[in-house]
Amino acid sequence: MATPDFLDAASALLGPRGFTRDPELVEPWLTDWRGRYTGKALALASPASTAEVAELVELCAEHGVPIVPQGGNSGMCGGATPDESGHAILLSLRRMNAIRRLDPQAREATCEAGVILQTLHEAAAAEGLRFPLTLGGKGTATIGGLISTNAGGTQVLRHGSMRAQVLGMEAVLADGGVFDALTPLKKDNRGFDLKQLLIGSEGTLGIVTAATLRLLPALADRAVLWAGLSAVSAAPRLLAHAEQVAGDALEGFELMPRHSLDAVLAHVKGSRNPLAGEHAWHVLIELAADRAHADALPGLAQTLLESAFEAGLVEDATIAANEAQAEAFWLLRDEIAPAERALGPAMQHDVSVPVATMAAFIEETTPLVEERFPGVRVVAFGHLGDGNVHYHVLAPEGAVRGEWELEQGKQISRFVHDLVDEWRGSISAEHGIGQLKRDELERLGDPVQIHLMRAVKQALDPQGLLNPGKLVPLAREAANP
Amino acid sequence: MATPDFLDAASALLGPRGFTRDPELVEPWLTDWRGRYTGKALALASPASTAEVAELVELCAEHGVPIVPQGGNSGMCGGATPDESGHAILLSLRRMNAIRRLDPQAREATCEAGVILQTLHEAAAAEGLRFPLTLGGKGTATIGGLISTNAGGTQVLRHGSMRAQVLGMEAVLADGGVFDALTPLKKDNRGFDLKQLLIGSEGTLGIVTAATLRLLPALADRAVLWAGLSAVSAAPRLLAHAEQVAGDALEGFELMPRHSLDAVLAHVKGSRNPLAGEHAWHVLIELAADRAHADALPGLAQTLLESAFEAGLVEDATIAANEAQAEAFWLLRDEIAPAERALGPAMQHDVSVPVATMAAFIEETTPLVEERFPGVRVVAFGHLGDGNVHYHVLAPEGAVRGEWELEQGKQISRFVHDLVDEWRGSISAEHGIGQLKRDELERLGDPVQIHLMRAVKQALDPQGLLNPGKLVPLAREAANP
Repeated sequence: MATPDFLDAASALLGPRGFTRDPELVEPWLTDWRGRYTGKALALASPASTAEVAELVELCAEHGVPIVPQGGNSGMCGGATPDESGHAILLSLRRMNAIRRLDPQAREATCEAGVILQTLHEAAAAEGLRFPLTLGGKGTATIGGLISTNAGGTQVLRHGSMRAQVLGMEAVLADGGVFDALTPLKKDNRGFDLKQLLIGSEGTLGIVTAATLRLLPALADRAVLWAGLSAVSAAPRLLAHAEQVAGDALEGFELMPRHSLDAVLAHVKGSRNPLAGEHAWHVLIELAADRAHADALPGLAQTLLESAFEAGLVEDATIAANEAQAEAFWLLRDEIAPAERALGPAMQHDVSVPVATMAAFIEETTPLVEERFPGVRVVAFGHLGDGNVHYHVLAPEGAVRGEWELEQGKQISRFVHDLVDEWRGSISAEHGIGQLKRDELERLGDPVQIHLMRAVKQALDPQGLLNPGKLVPLAREAANP
Repeated sequence: MATPDFLDAASALLGPRGFTRDPELVEPWLTDWRGRYTGKALALASPASTAEVAELVELCAEHGVPIVPQGGNSGMCGGATPDESGHAILLSLRRMNAIRRLDPQAREATCEAGVILQTLHEAAAAEGLRFPLTLGGKGTATIGGLISTNAGGTQVLRHGSMRAQVLGMEAVLADGGVFDALTPLKKDNRGFDLKQLLIGSEGTLGIVTAATLRLLPALADRAVLWAGLSAVSAAPRLLAHAEQVAGDALEGFELMPRHSLDAVLAHVKGSRNPLAGEHAWHVLIELAADRAHADALPGLAQTLLESAFEAGLVEDATIAANEAQAEAFWLLRDEIAPAERALGPAMQHDVSVPVATMAAFIEETTPLVEERFPGVRVVAFGHLGDGNVHYHVLAPEGAVRGEWELEQGKQISRFVHDLVDEWRGSISAEHGIGQLKRDELERLGDPVQIHLMRAVKQALDPQGLLNPGKLVPLAREAANP
């Protein structure tokens, strides 16, 4: 429990800009952006440097004060929201927002945890480079949060998730020690790669304060294709074909059912179907090239289109004639979530299975869910190339938002997660575990792996002060076989 | 200590093919291939399945018997050689040599730990695919050993080290539990990525029994360039230029000094200098393309060559006219180590620094080493694109092999490692730590990181039975600040 001594010391350490208990300043950060979780906090700490974070964490360790780290507060699973006890401090990294170094020659940027993704995009673009990870929340998501959740997005197919972008890392550990592995070494085999352990650990093992990230040459050109398919089972064959024909140029492969396209067309004013006919499933394919390969790109897109027709993989397909049309195609994909939401309540699941079985998973599980819960409709869309779809279960017509989720939501999610588990998939593809899925991880997780996670957590945070109640299942005392 | 009970139980578990104490069968595996380390073992265990490994490890845990896992016994740092106590069993994974699954569509292979790298190369090639990691020991190195040491090689620049190839993993933990994360999921954010912790841990945290590895489309064509430079400082600029012009087609960038080229030309019968004139430094550049990009490759190589001339980055350069010439260029690179060895004794260092500073590191540290140890000569060559060079210090003329290393070798290595540390580099770029560098890691490692490593080791292997004496520094009791 925090003592007045702790509060005085923290306040003296961080000063008025860095430490406040003013409810008006603290409260906006106590609820996650989706409004699912609200907690309480002893205070809001906003250190301005790694040294301040380290001193604060050491102080918390001495006084046994829990810490909830927070970046842009745009996470999907309540991982940055404190519990209701009010014992924890909320540690915001937002003031640490410097890009310490951007080296165009080495194509690296060293960013503090609070740098906003969009800011990094802009800084890279100014040097003719790009940071190859993006997602809807780019205007609020921070580098620290993206690393802590190993964020995904629409470019994982080609460039990997956040883990693949991190060349170096600085973090503060539970005892206030500073883990300094910021210097990027392409090859370094001096033992356990501890930064890999911190990536995706949602602030439960350490607090990321900075990272060195890889940058790529800016794209010189892209080609966006839209295809209509008769069945979802045609999609993985089209994906394999696209990989074979386009190789490294394949940058995105997004799948959506007719239901989602219709919803978007109804929802977004002025939007139109890229194809004239009607198709059960639609695929958006993006090819991209840097300067060295830009000349070959239009020919490659044409070859892909024609060969897909010849091989009978598509019912119809078209290539965006210009950049405006390419953006219009992507808008149809990006607007699915809001368009589906406008139709009524839904349970959303961020799941993955092996890429090769995703289409079969959708095909075979849809009737099971729809039979088990009469009146619901399954809509699955998203990153087929990553084996990751957003598997939404729409409420029956007339269901009341807020009530239906409480009545049937949990049952539906358990049913969907059981199916994912049977297919050897993951109940969290890209959003993480946080508070939202901790019970489900405990219920379905491999006991050996959960035991390992707990052992690692105990070793790195013996007092259990780092983001308590998140991610790590605590209840299975005798789980290890 | 092992009891007769343990020996009986292990023998009954594994049978005569899987368990032997016959010195003739055990001894060949008690010395590392470079002949630097020789140990003793209680027995040689060669289980045939993951289940057998798990039962054996459980038995060892019960009886407190240490385990030294071994793959191809081709490691560079004595990581697979037991100590002299004779208390440990040598656990060979060589009988587990099945490719359980090779899926050309998904481009994945699930290999048991004992599969030899060359075998995987051949299996992939038979399906029009390739496994994008190779190294000199490919005829003996096993998948398990490559993962445990996070092996590098000549293709890291483009494709990353072994870590980047591992999509899924199966391992046996210290208590005999089976960690099963073989199913490859492109996106999976269910907590700590524990397989990342096992990669590169040299058998000290668990025993890798199988892995799912990524495959790539076979290369359709390659272009190999040879360039002569006036100074090593021109090399990073040429690298940056090659990255800009060739983008993803850049597959290799190897550096060698004139001394190494001369040594190879003298050592390898029939070899010839690709360039007519004399140059202080030489660079081999490989560009490669899959089917989708093969047509553009010759033009790309020509553009790279011409633009490098125009930019004044090379004194002279040429493109291999055909595959035979390309192989001859690569032979000049691959024969450096034997050619230098033929000249006399040398201390070899596998070190890395940030890519951007490698040339300056070579330029600035060479005179320091040569002044400090009169008569020696520094020869640095290798993977400049990875910031990884093999930094050899050749003995003075007339030095006696075997004596000189003992007299001056350790002093020289400490001096070189101190320099690497000053330049924020790694004393092990790709070979690992094993027994060879454990003291140096202890001497130079960051105390925070060493403390973390020990905490993780303690958590996962509380009895300290997995590959004792390797990798993890044990002495710094009060190291954590």
